[in-house]
Amino acid sequence: MKKLEEIILSHGEVYGKDILKVDSFLNHQIKPKLIQEMAEEFADHFKDKNITKILTVESSGIAPALLTGLKLGCDVVFARKQKSLTTDDNTYSSTCYSYTKEEMKRLMVSKNFLSEEDNVLLIDDFLANGQAAKAMVAICKQAGANVCGIGIVIEKSYQDGRALLDDMGIDVYSLARISHMDGKEIDFID
Amino acid sequence: MKKLEEIILSHGEVYGKDILKVDSFLNHQIKPKLIQEMAEEFADHFKDKNITKILTVESSGIAPALLTGLKLGCDVVFARKQKSLTTDDNTYSSTCYSYTKEEMKRLMVSKNFLSEEDNVLLIDDFLANGQAAKAMVAICKQAGANVCGIGIVIEKSYQDGRALLDDMGIDVYSLARISHMDGKEIDFID
Repeated sequence: MKKLEEIILSHGEVYGKDILKVDSFLNHQIKPKLIQEMAEEFADHFKDKNITKILTVESSGIAPALLTGLKLGCDVVFARKQKSLTTDDNTYSSTCYSYTKEEMKRLMVSKNFLSEEDNVLLIDDFLANGQAAKAMVAICKQAGANVCGIGIVIEKSYQDGRALLDDMGIDVYSLARISHMDGKEIDFID
Repeated sequence: MKKLEEIILSHGEVYGKDILKVDSFLNHQIKPKLIQEMAEEFADHFKDKNITKILTVESSGIAPALLTGLKLGCDVVFARKQKSLTTDDNTYSSTCYSYTKEEMKRLMVSKNFLSEEDNVLLIDDFLANGQAAKAMVAICKQAGANVCGIGIVIEKSYQDGRALLDDMGIDVYSLARISHMDGKEIDFID
């Protein structure tokens, strides 16, 4: 998505080789029209997969997931992040390590909102090490739901997440794929 | 909003006189078309206020805020909740007590995304004691921004929040106003 790449270049803040801050349009302030264009890309790519539910993670996944759900005509569920590692009997859950926050989190989804009849599209803002994506896949497996693919706004292609999901046979569709980042420089995979 | 009242009656789960769980369409699973109808109500009510920015709180405020922003043509900012009470020099922040989670939270908004030139519409999922709303108003005051009003999905009118905001002279527009709740019974103010 060319427009997204341009906005990452003009508005993203890069710190070293790993941290890309996109607080001005995705992670803190949200630009609704831009998110709508992202959602149109996701909906177009996955339109023939008979998606019955979108699963994302709070908070930054909610905006692109909601507008994709509106376009595809399906409900959206956001997994809750809990620092507590306790489980609730009525939830599916999986732990993942957050590299940006340097802590373990448990993602939880109520059993009421995911079932073996669901064809699930996963949506997330970033794909880096793939930890959150892997946890969402694990949650779908617990529910017996079918994972149809994953839509990512920004993929750091030089980290392990993409390969991890490719190896699981999951259709990964990323709107911007960063091959290299360093201070002022950001390169994309076309 | 009659349709919302009906969905609260059919899908809401009431525990005692205080807790209303609406996880099936607002707080965990989201119904995009219903949220769009809410956003149309908000946008219609506040359309003449020259709103330049919407401020909400993660996570459940994001969906109605995003679609209202799309309709009004303005950006949305979601305040981040931090359990830590430390401040960051580059943020506006205010603490509030969460009665449902029984803990103090600090709401934070980057100084980059709110200014004295903004006419701000606040949006939130619930209004009960008004603690989160009050913190959002405080953040706007720190930024020198003008608060044009607040859009609430579900107001518990028998709690203090509404009176608190009325006393501050803020235009409160709630889509469903609950006058009384008790086990199986929910009454609305027409």
